[in-house]
Amino acid sequence: MKYFVTGAAGFIGSTLVDRLLGLGHSVVGFDNFSTGQERFLETANQSAKFRLVPGDILDINAISSALEGCDTVFHLAANADVRNGWMHPQKDLQQNTIGTFNVLEAMRKAGVRRIAFSSTGSVYGEALVTAATPTQEDAAFPVQTSLYGASKLAGEGLISAYAEGGQIDEAYIFRFVSILGERYTHGHVFDFYRQLRENPESLTVLGNGTQKKSYLYVGDCINAILHATGNHLAAKAKHHTSVFNLGTREFVEVNDSIRIICDELGVKPRLQYTGGDRGWIGDNPFIFLSAERMRGSGWSPSLSIEEGVRTTVRWLQNNQWVYEARTGQ
Amino acid sequence: MKYFVTGAAGFIGSTLVDRLLGLGHSVVGFDNFSTGQERFLETANQSAKFRLVPGDILDINAISSALEGCDTVFHLAANADVRNGWMHPQKDLQQNTIGTFNVLEAMRKAGVRRIAFSSTGSVYGEALVTAATPTQEDAAFPVQTSLYGASKLAGEGLISAYAEGGQIDEAYIFRFVSILGERYTHGHVFDFYRQLRENPESLTVLGNGTQKKSYLYVGDCINAILHATGNHLAAKAKHHTSVFNLGTREFVEVNDSIRIICDELGVKPRLQYTGGDRGWIGDNPFIFLSAERMRGSGWSPSLSIEEGVRTTVRWLQNNQWVYEARTGQ
Repeated sequence: MKYFVTGAAGFIGSTLVDRLLGLGHSVVGFDNFSTGQERFLETANQSAKFRLVPGDILDINAISSALEGCDTVFHLAANADVRNGWMHPQKDLQQNTIGTFNVLEAMRKAGVRRIAFSSTGSVYGEALVTAATPTQEDAAFPVQTSLYGASKLAGEGLISAYAEGGQIDEAYIFRFVSILGERYTHGHVFDFYRQLRENPESLTVLGNGTQKKSYLYVGDCINAILHATGNHLAAKAKHHTSVFNLGTREFVEVNDSIRIICDELGVKPRLQYTGGDRGWIGDNPFIFLSAERMRGSGWSPSLSIEEGVRTTVRWLQNNQWVYEARTGQ
Repeated sequence: MKYFVTGAAGFIGSTLVDRLLGLGHSVVGFDNFSTGQERFLETANQSAKFRLVPGDILDINAISSALEGCDTVFHLAANADVRNGWMHPQKDLQQNTIGTFNVLEAMRKAGVRRIAFSSTGSVYGEALVTAATPTQEDAAFPVQTSLYGASKLAGEGLISAYAEGGQIDEAYIFRFVSILGERYTHGHVFDFYRQLRENPESLTVLGNGTQKKSYLYVGDCINAILHATGNHLAAKAKHHTSVFNLGTREFVEVNDSIRIICDELGVKPRLQYTGGDRGWIGDNPFIFLSAERMRGSGWSPSLSIEEGVRTTVRWLQNNQWVYEARTGQ
């Protein structure tokens, strides 16, 4: 098999590339290095089966020529800056919607008929959720509350329309909770650790700290993607499209993450809350996805949220260069 | 009040323009005349309160300058060619998603904070529906089955994200069944009448004729839009976004429409079915929306589907020029 990975130099993308190469596959990696890191591809670049193509998913011709001869696309390239969407409202539309369209059109022209897409729990907007009832894939039709969620949902819609239109044989849509682990460069834990390495005495927390969030370890995320695609679950799915939430059976409050991070680092900062039940416009105060559909197919995560957070903090401690690099933060 | 209407020279747009002018409002009409008709604006053009601005919603500067001084946008401009989406896959994305983004950005820059959007029941994909259970606005999260539906859903998502992001005070999303009536230039009844005026002896029907479709009279559609916006229903809605299905409490089979059309015309053609339960890729064999949410606010339609079809056929008989005009068919 020859795989095409967009966002190949990113956190999840580069981890997927290494895994695919480890399994003996050929991989073409595509990345515009807007937030991706050359260093994440150091291992991959040592493999004769890896080819890196620098390029932007807004350039359909670049995708088309790089895609030649591949049989499956893992489309991970995205603008994942949920929080600052209003600083550049067209970035989500361009990178997450138009970019996805370009990938699909390039696939159509090249005759590539399998795609896996990294979507997000943000597409559920503010779905009704309780500790006992996490959000399922067939939740009530949501109202979008962020440009990021809206742009990813638009990408999902394009992919399934292509599948229903006979242009794609297998479409996989994975709605992620926040992913963390080695090479993590974006999100709560990243931000908290940045503050604490600058000043271990004080930590500013957006909102009141009781926002409930969910995390999944990157290795478990990639296991799920490879499990679903490897077993061709979408081939028999209605509309040739499989939609899977990915997450654990837990959630944590922001305050819990802080406790774990501080414990791992052995620091006791003074906490300063900005207040309110949301960290920013469009922030969802309770994200908890049911991944029972994915579990039903035989997958389950190996790390708890706490283990994932600790792994992440240890990696950040050993890789503080990411705070000097351009990571989209 | 000064209203901005995109797609002002279209079927629904021009009817809305005439209604707004009749109510004494000022209206700026915006249209690229790709499918709109100058003749539909003959009445409007006689009003001192109407200003027509030819322009495309892909040109954000054109929108911005035309929008100056307006307080509400009725965004009806769209590519509505559901059936032939695969002949030009980027048209839906451009006109229905990127165009909507441009309208929103122009509004943001101009400080215009109310928008009503013509969406579609196609966003429900193939929702489970029976005669007793029409599709409700909070149906299970659907899988998109057409480029048209996907592009309109993307437009919806952008609008609600703008509302949640504090950029818009009132967002109205109307999911239409097929609209018909005077100035109708697009859809089943249009196509059947075209065939019958060329040859009253024979009629080709895509699919097996048992597809169940829903129609709403254009006057009732506009009543609903003006009722919801006039009563500022979205001002108090969650996320400042109101979503309303629009339709009657009935549906008809394609064969029923044919019977009504033939009866109205006094013809008895030989029917030739192309077969299968779908007329085209992405065709939905059962479209029936619950408009009870909208009814609950005090609106109800005045014409039955049969009355709407008969009105439409009579208008087409008296306006056969539309078959020579470029109408997107």
